[in-house]
Amino acid sequence: MSTKYLYLFTEGNADMRELLGGKGANLAEMTNLGMPVPQGFTITTEACNRYYDDGRTIAPEIESDIIAYMAKLEEITGKKFGNPDNPLLVSVRSGARASMPGMMDTILNLGINDVVAEGMITLTKNPRFVYDSYRRFIQMFSDVVMELPKSDFEKYIDEVKAERGVKYDAELDENDMKRLVEHFKEYYKEKMGVDFPQDPKIQLMEAVKAVFRSWDNPRANSYRKMNDIPSSWGTAVNVQSMVFGNWGDDSGTGVAFTRDPATGEKNLFGEFLMNAQGEDVVAGIRTPHTIDQLAEIMPDVYKEFKEIADKLENHYKDMQDMEFTIERGKLYMLQTRNGKRTAASALRIAVALVEEGLCTREEAILKVDPKQLDSVLHPQFNEAALKAASPVANGLAASPGAACGAVYFTADDAKEHAKGGPVLLVRLETSPEDIEGMAAAEGILTCRGGMTSHAAVVARGMGTCCVSGCGAIIIDEEAKTLRVGDHVVREGEFMSIDGSTGNVYIGKIPTEPARITGDFETVMGWADDVRKLRVRTNADTEPDAAQAVKFGAEGIGLTRTEHMFFDEDRIPAVREMIVSKTKEQREKALAKLLPMQRGDFESIYKVMEGRPVTVRLLDPPLHEFLPHEDEAIADLAKTMGISFDELKDTVTQLQEVNPMMGHRGCRLAVTYPEIAAMQARAIIEAAINVNRETDYNIVPEIMIPLVGEEKELKFVKDVVVETAEKVIKEAGAELKYHVGTMIEIPRAALTADKIAKEAEFFSFGTNDLTQMTFGFSRDDAGKFLPEYYEHKIFENDPFAKFDQEGVGKLVKLAVELGRKTRPDIHLGVCGEHGGDPSSVEFFHNAGLDYVSCSPFRVPIARLAAAHAQIKNPR
Amino acid sequence: MSTKYLYLFTEGNADMRELLGGKGANLAEMTNLGMPVPQGFTITTEACNRYYDDGRTIAPEIESDIIAYMAKLEEITGKKFGNPDNPLLVSVRSGARASMPGMMDTILNLGINDVVAEGMITLTKNPRFVYDSYRRFIQMFSDVVMELPKSDFEKYIDEVKAERGVKYDAELDENDMKRLVEHFKEYYKEKMGVDFPQDPKIQLMEAVKAVFRSWDNPRANSYRKMNDIPSSWGTAVNVQSMVFGNWGDDSGTGVAFTRDPATGEKNLFGEFLMNAQGEDVVAGIRTPHTIDQLAEIMPDVYKEFKEIADKLENHYKDMQDMEFTIERGKLYMLQTRNGKRTAASALRIAVALVEEGLCTREEAILKVDPKQLDSVLHPQFNEAALKAASPVANGLAASPGAACGAVYFTADDAKEHAKGGPVLLVRLETSPEDIEGMAAAEGILTCRGGMTSHAAVVARGMGTCCVSGCGAIIIDEEAKTLRVGDHVVREGEFMSIDGSTGNVYIGKIPTEPARITGDFETVMGWADDVRKLRVRTNADTEPDAAQAVKFGAEGIGLTRTEHMFFDEDRIPAVREMIVSKTKEQREKALAKLLPMQRGDFESIYKVMEGRPVTVRLLDPPLHEFLPHEDEAIADLAKTMGISFDELKDTVTQLQEVNPMMGHRGCRLAVTYPEIAAMQARAIIEAAINVNRETDYNIVPEIMIPLVGEEKELKFVKDVVVETAEKVIKEAGAELKYHVGTMIEIPRAALTADKIAKEAEFFSFGTNDLTQMTFGFSRDDAGKFLPEYYEHKIFENDPFAKFDQEGVGKLVKLAVELGRKTRPDIHLGVCGEHGGDPSSVEFFHNAGLDYVSCSPFRVPIARLAAAHAQIKNPR
Repeated sequence: MSTKYLYLFTEGNADMRELLGGKGANLAEMTNLGMPVPQGFTITTEACNRYYDDGRTIAPEIESDIIAYMAKLEEITGKKFGNPDNPLLVSVRSGARASMPGMMDTILNLGINDVVAEGMITLTKNPRFVYDSYRRFIQMFSDVVMELPKSDFEKYIDEVKAERGVKYDAELDENDMKRLVEHFKEYYKEKMGVDFPQDPKIQLMEAVKAVFRSWDNPRANSYRKMNDIPSSWGTAVNVQSMVFGNWGDDSGTGVAFTRDPATGEKNLFGEFLMNAQGEDVVAGIRTPHTIDQLAEIMPDVYKEFKEIADKLENHYKDMQDMEFTIERGKLYMLQTRNGKRTAASALRIAVALVEEGLCTREEAILKVDPKQLDSVLHPQFNEAALKAASPVANGLAASPGAACGAVYFTADDAKEHAKGGPVLLVRLETSPEDIEGMAAAEGILTCRGGMTSHAAVVARGMGTCCVSGCGAIIIDEEAKTLRVGDHVVREGEFMSIDGSTGNVYIGKIPTEPARITGDFETVMGWADDVRKLRVRTNADTEPDAAQAVKFGAEGIGLTRTEHMFFDEDRIPAVREMIVSKTKEQREKALAKLLPMQRGDFESIYKVMEGRPVTVRLLDPPLHEFLPHEDEAIADLAKTMGISFDELKDTVTQLQEVNPMMGHRGCRLAVTYPEIAAMQARAIIEAAINVNRETDYNIVPEIMIPLVGEEKELKFVKDVVVETAEKVIKEAGAELKYHVGTMIEIPRAALTADKIAKEAEFFSFGTNDLTQMTFGFSRDDAGKFLPEYYEHKIFENDPFAKFDQEGVGKLVKLAVELGRKTRPDIHLGVCGEHGGDPSSVEFFHNAGLDYVSCSPFRVPIARLAAAHAQIKNPR
Repeated sequence: MSTKYLYLFTEGNADMRELLGGKGANLAEMTNLGMPVPQGFTITTEACNRYYDDGRTIAPEIESDIIAYMAKLEEITGKKFGNPDNPLLVSVRSGARASMPGMMDTILNLGINDVVAEGMITLTKNPRFVYDSYRRFIQMFSDVVMELPKSDFEKYIDEVKAERGVKYDAELDENDMKRLVEHFKEYYKEKMGVDFPQDPKIQLMEAVKAVFRSWDNPRANSYRKMNDIPSSWGTAVNVQSMVFGNWGDDSGTGVAFTRDPATGEKNLFGEFLMNAQGEDVVAGIRTPHTIDQLAEIMPDVYKEFKEIADKLENHYKDMQDMEFTIERGKLYMLQTRNGKRTAASALRIAVALVEEGLCTREEAILKVDPKQLDSVLHPQFNEAALKAASPVANGLAASPGAACGAVYFTADDAKEHAKGGPVLLVRLETSPEDIEGMAAAEGILTCRGGMTSHAAVVARGMGTCCVSGCGAIIIDEEAKTLRVGDHVVREGEFMSIDGSTGNVYIGKIPTEPARITGDFETVMGWADDVRKLRVRTNADTEPDAAQAVKFGAEGIGLTRTEHMFFDEDRIPAVREMIVSKTKEQREKALAKLLPMQRGDFESIYKVMEGRPVTVRLLDPPLHEFLPHEDEAIADLAKTMGISFDELKDTVTQLQEVNPMMGHRGCRLAVTYPEIAAMQARAIIEAAINVNRETDYNIVPEIMIPLVGEEKELKFVKDVVVETAEKVIKEAGAELKYHVGTMIEIPRAALTADKIAKEAEFFSFGTNDLTQMTFGFSRDDAGKFLPEYYEHKIFENDPFAKFDQEGVGKLVKLAVELGRKTRPDIHLGVCGEHGGDPSSVEFFHNAGLDYVSCSPFRVPIARLAAAHAQIKNPR
């Protein structure tokens, strides 16, 4: 049997959205519900994919199907396509599986031509309406199908209006409209070299192709990328018989929501225009009426619409976003869909739907997109002000929220000026020494670095807005200016950045503070009741940990001990350790660090109040702790009382060709076991101290990073265990502790059965595992990934959205092998993917025990984990 | 049932070498054959492992077993351990599964003490013999068990000899020997604080422990690492009743081979000493007799020995290396084993054994170690001269052979001075610009870089000797000197390096040229008949390819196109391409490269005479083609007619944090498809031209590197295929070609089922795959791998010996997935592992079609492939 590529609205239903797209499926559903829907048919998403497979052509059998379905539609409507005596006009509109408002194309009034127009005038006695419809069609066809510039048409309309001394299109009369038609046809011929197509079938096929094509236009591509919609889904095309809101003053068109999309308040919310068509409402040509005014203007129509709206909301059990048209006093429904809404509104509606008994808590949870929570947890731009602004550049949306502040180019300057008002820290890339400046800034903007660069990771940890890897920004550090395109911004001047979109603006855009409501707490509570996957946080400091606990973190999945090493009062000891020539010197330096590390752990244990805490041993290559410029080396050498040459020598020796794959992680502990021993001592001593001081029963989890081989883990574990046992004995205490490893090297995943012999827990370090599995470094991939997106080789940044197909296979393998050796092995994720909803769903399905993410993503992970459990209970 | 840790010689046989070690198994076998073997027992390798598992102690049950077996031995010999009236003395000797001559420890005459010595004097009436035996025992026990310095003992013997005016130990009389015993006991007491142990049981247990311990001594560890012997094997210990070659002038001891180990000539070959024991023969104390002289001195013993030797060779079907002792005119066999031999000898013996009908071709093939072939393919040091020299440093044995030459520190200097005589090029590390200097040098020595560094790879390709990563060498480029330890070597002074051992010497050591004999050809012919795995070569130039064909390469598995880019007449166009700002500029530069690349491929196709040729598209990051120092940048900018700033800008932009994981491989082709198009055109045009000129039917194989995702491969493949089809059409020719990919990114292996949809062949790039799977870069791993070897975390360099457990799992997975999608997919390996015998065996077992390695390793791979097929036919 050949594939069925077309469905009448009477053949479909709401469950067929994959095939028919959202619009098509809902038009079918409304038809089934007996609502007044102008009939039509849907060309499926499979036909769209076929179009691309066939080298962007419509296969002959689909063309003849379209013609056959037009014949069926003629039968249903009793009208004839292209027949002036009783003409059938149609709209041709895109409709993908996921709603992508405004991203693709629409053509109205298709089927009109010179002859049909004449016939319509005869039939309707309304030449103005007919010429208006015709000129609209020419405009849309020229724009959408032929890609002629829209503005040329609008300019001419403006000329005519000026000439006629009127303000609105609606004030143009029959003759004006006729003149527009004539002019547009001439313009078309001039530009295209042929007459405007008069054959309705050609109009139709070209329009269908144009809609298919629009699936691949740049704005659709970027919308999809932002919203995680695969390009393989394709769009459906809906061919629907026209009803006319522009027939006259008893006609109109509008859009409405069943609840307020900004607040969630239960109240019909929307607007409409009389004597108008399609785009007019949103185009702002005239000020539209609010939907309430319809009750005054056409009370019966309003009542009918209200009833339909209520019925639809009850039917879909969700807030609906509807389009309608009134043709000569009769209401038609053109679309319904679950309405887009703000996060606050989403939470309100979810709670209200449950209160109203319209749906269960689980159903309500699914109505809140976890990604949206970012906007209730972080400041956002004032919406009106944002609309008026245009971005000058776009970087990576590295840490959500909006920020506006005076620009400074060094961490010190940012810190200094933050006392006087909000600042933005703008850097080529950040490094650990910038921490204080980063903490002082409202937002961070970097020219280099990806989603897991230093700036991005630290900013997410702090909940500070960050746009990273914005290559269009060129900093002149000496001149204290930045250049972006033709603009130059001086130190102290204002910029605004949006860490949720990656947009960068010059000047001030006012922000609105984060707002956590009771609805948020209610929904999060439900989510916690449902989910099986636990949620921990990545936190290196007491404040981060405290913030995460407030956001519901159930423990710490990753404490990076090296972040503590950069503090002003510690770095000297760290450097002393690095330049040590003997084990004794090194141990002396480490002894200075011990009390500081112990103090850190004590404060973190306390703030976590007995929740599990996983501490990772030192991970980065040692050269990260030393300066690299001769001047700074000379300064430091003086401070340290060693010669420049000696220090320079150490710096040179520590240099690596590929630091990412160099002397770091547990490799440091193999070379310098005394470092691991000091850290183990600090972790254990801190736990003993806190257990003595408090009622908590701290059971530290010591995590050994970058393991690739069982014997390597065993070696470092032996150092840790030996130290721990000694410390416990010295203290005369009892203490449980666990030793485990990160799985972040492909070989560790491949040999997880052996690794599990030594590891009590695995924590998947998905950042590094992604780098190694893909074979590209997050610091360098920014150079070539844009082309990968452009050619659709990748549709997502694998550092933001977990790669289930490749890296996921390693994770599943490691879970399986690890459990084979040690059935009760504890399994978690501590890469930044732990805060990405689709990744969380994968980890739930893979059977992990927990995910760990930065504090501000904890609520997102909690909600995503609930979604995962509801979709696939375990 | 408890484990049996001890075996009498009468309980074992030759097949039990895993348990009894080679020596123990062969002593048992000789016992079974009725040969005169002093009886004894073997403590198994399992007991050794148990010793290490138990924290370096001998378990009580094993101790009591040893005592029980001593009792059995007493029964067999009719003597009593520690009983002066009829004393049993024993030797305690190591014996691992693989023979490790001289690596571990031996103790003779154990069981002697003051009382036993007295008894022996009474029994033998030979006090000189008894005191000689006793002093020897004290020496060996002190050295081996107590680690007292051997030299202290020797010094004292020399003093006594001087005092007595004699030259040889044998000239010392009864009183001298007694004096030695007394002195040694005093010395022992002084050093150890206790008397020399008189209890034979204590002597025995300590000796057994010492032998176990010697398994882990540094020289054994380094021997094992060099010979691929896992530390998990352990050593057995043989306790054997003593026979005495030092009884008097009718006694003696010797070693002999059934054939000449240097030439393979069939002739008893060996030497012996009368009135001597154990080490004396090899210690060179007196000039030993040749084995022929035994026929004169003791004709009956000679005849018996000759018969036994023949019988042993026939029995083991291989050349035997035997130890024997004559005690008062009676012959005893102490050891037999397959003799170590030179490569030339191994080949001769293999051929002879077949000619003599002693074994089949397949058996003979297995007697030649593929690794040994290196020494017939490359120059070697003169053995006598080498013995007299001592290395000043040791680096990685990166490319085999020996070289001696005047040292130069730049490629230009090396090239210049090579006209006047042999030179060694010594560099921190080499880069592609050094090619000509490398080609001119006899040998290459680098301070940095691993087994797959540029120097190593290129040297192996050229067959030039190379020692890489020799960190002990410190170069002062300005002063044109190098420092190694306390030595300073100036430019022009001579050094010698051994690329088979990694040893570095100051001064001249004469070399002997490579010698390929008829036996080599014979054995290689047999290997080719047997093997199923095909052998290709990695070759980038016509001479390399020609060399490989001579060595039996059946095709090229890897042509790196970038090596061609570095030629003096090409690099300008390459650089022009890199600094291009537009596609047009880039295409213009590429057009200049096209004829050169085409010419390269034509000459390679011709020399390969129709054998398959796989060409890899451009792989390295573009910054490799640009200078990095300001001065060089300024020079180049001038030459190119662009500003310094512009070129510096390009260099800076191309800089990468982790170049290994950066913008390289097919990622370049995604960004600049025009590069791939130019290369595809050159490959195809060259094939068409050669096919027209010759009778060959060239079917080029175009290989896309660094693929991690199916769509990425498809994108580049589309560029290649489109170009190829266009070129073929333009030429009006017919041409078959294949497009495939390297599997060198873990994700490619994990998603090989999808990749195989687009790839006609896979070539495993095991160098990069190893780097990514282990997560360490070959350029940086040198810093921490030494500790990994020291702690036995790794026993081999995974870049030299393929990691079957981790990386191997990915290869097997990719083979399975690839064949699932495309059952006839062609599978090969082009990493340097293709020339490593144990790795070749893995690839054979994994079912690959071919391996590809550098030209000089082709014979090794051919032989290794035959070994693999014989061991595991497929």
